[in-house]
Amino acid sequence: MTGRVRAVALGGGHGLHATLTALRRITPDVTAVVTVADDGGSSGRLRRELGLLPPGDLRQALAALAAAEDGGTLWSEVFQHRFGGTGALAGHAVGNLLLAGLFEVLGDPVAALDEARRLVGVSGRVLPMCPEPLEIEAEVTGLEQGAVSHIRGQVAVASTPGQVQRITLHNPLRPGVPPVACREAVEAVLSADVVFLGPGSWFTSVLPHLLVPELQDALVRTRATRVVILNLIPQPGETAGFSPERHLDVLFEHAPRLRVDAVIADRNSVPTPARLHHAAEELGGRAHLGDVCAAGAVGRHDPDALASCVREALGLHRER
Amino acid sequence: MTGRVRAVALGGGHGLHATLTALRRITPDVTAVVTVADDGGSSGRLRRELGLLPPGDLRQALAALAAAEDGGTLWSEVFQHRFGGTGALAGHAVGNLLLAGLFEVLGDPVAALDEARRLVGVSGRVLPMCPEPLEIEAEVTGLEQGAVSHIRGQVAVASTPGQVQRITLHNPLRPGVPPVACREAVEAVLSADVVFLGPGSWFTSVLPHLLVPELQDALVRTRATRVVILNLIPQPGETAGFSPERHLDVLFEHAPRLRVDAVIADRNSVPTPARLHHAAEELGGRAHLGDVCAAGAVGRHDPDALASCVREALGLHRER
Repeated sequence: MTGRVRAVALGGGHGLHATLTALRRITPDVTAVVTVADDGGSSGRLRRELGLLPPGDLRQALAALAAAEDGGTLWSEVFQHRFGGTGALAGHAVGNLLLAGLFEVLGDPVAALDEARRLVGVSGRVLPMCPEPLEIEAEVTGLEQGAVSHIRGQVAVASTPGQVQRITLHNPLRPGVPPVACREAVEAVLSADVVFLGPGSWFTSVLPHLLVPELQDALVRTRATRVVILNLIPQPGETAGFSPERHLDVLFEHAPRLRVDAVIADRNSVPTPARLHHAAEELGGRAHLGDVCAAGAVGRHDPDALASCVREALGLHRER
Repeated sequence: MTGRVRAVALGGGHGLHATLTALRRITPDVTAVVTVADDGGSSGRLRRELGLLPPGDLRQALAALAAAEDGGTLWSEVFQHRFGGTGALAGHAVGNLLLAGLFEVLGDPVAALDEARRLVGVSGRVLPMCPEPLEIEAEVTGLEQGAVSHIRGQVAVASTPGQVQRITLHNPLRPGVPPVACREAVEAVLSADVVFLGPGSWFTSVLPHLLVPELQDALVRTRATRVVILNLIPQPGETAGFSPERHLDVLFEHAPRLRVDAVIADRNSVPTPARLHHAAEELGGRAHLGDVCAAGAVGRHDPDALASCVREALGLHRER
């Protein structure tokens, strides 16, 4: 890898925010490819009321990239600010409302996101994984004796007391048709130097990208280095009781052709390092264990520590 | 007047939008000083729900100034865009929601408006006439036989079937205390080369500035040329049956010390030019009649024609 590193990070929510914040310490050329299946909170209300892409994860990614720019801290804060009280606007994030307005005026989410990042002076790019809102369906065991239950919707899946076995993605506007990838996201993956999957809600933020056929195909075909960043703690509901290796198994089960070059994990989150090393090797790569957990914040990555672990995994020098 | 003309326009709503659009054809140094007494529509809902300055007239002024900038048309459109449907967001203008978020994050409307104009790349400035939301009260005749009724609130006053005789301004947070002017607005009026009053809803958008003691005082003391732009048609409710001269009388009744240097009116809206000339002279100035009405749009000023009439009234050459 020489010159300016072109990095693409796939994910959603707080996990993607953490990756983007770390990556901006390494390169200005960061593209976020964001899940569009959220149906909860401010995003879910906007999606239902206006029929738009749920903007929350996109906003979160823009805010992470804005915060890395000179003078971008205020806009990051404004985008993330939520109205309080108990009225019609309570809980809506300002950035969600602005993105919703841009979606309506421009009629094209990619053009709208490009305008939003120009507005805030962000050097990276934020793209939806698909141009249309999607719905997650999960096969869940443990809810009914000996049966597989089908749970629909991101919020329902993320909070099920059962065990998620696998997920599928649906386009509610085109039942039965596989989701179509955002063209610019596919191009970004194919021309990247390095692509990142995770951390984040494993089934509802990380895996969905692998269920968009063109995006999975691009991840398989790209000549970029493929890096998986594991979560610090299992997520109640989605991944309760999951070992680090189980996270990798689940990736492989959803995308059997996918190879991985590096797996980054927090040293204290890996009970049996030998097992993780073995699982990473089975996917074609190496595990890199570091101290990437933020001090005093359970489950949060420290951006500097994560950036330095990424540099090590990619063989980059700090001067870069 | 030499060098770059510093223009200040006082008003609100569509009338101020028209003045700003015309003035930006003359000078980049335009400051809008905007009424903050709106209690209707999207602004009224935001004001009641969040306890903020009603943002609608401020947004309208920002949009007018943004539209004059290279690449500002999109942002002008996004600011003015209203969500449709019948849900919680229906009718809210995107710019109102963004301004509300900035007000909450920065806690200071002037700082928030300065950030908003930096964001959109506006060269002029938009200021509230007061930093706190105000309420209009009108003395209205013709509603009850022989009695004066007191009507509260901008929407109620603007739509009363009675005749508005005079208005007063109240700060609902500090009953009995006269409204305090925005310091930056007073400074702008004092250091301007030319200040404009009108067009617009005469009682609810134009006159309120004269009822803020420090602002009236600044308008009386400033060495700027004072220009009044009259409406094209009487406004049902507020000014039904008002002659052009009656508009000037009402100004004088609310601010007896105010002198006016120029009164701009549309030739076809003045039934008896001699009377308007006389009324303008009584206020210390001259009337300038031009063809300033937009073709095919009843009650709308044509920005180019208005700009050219303003130039003539100020003795400015087109090259400026």
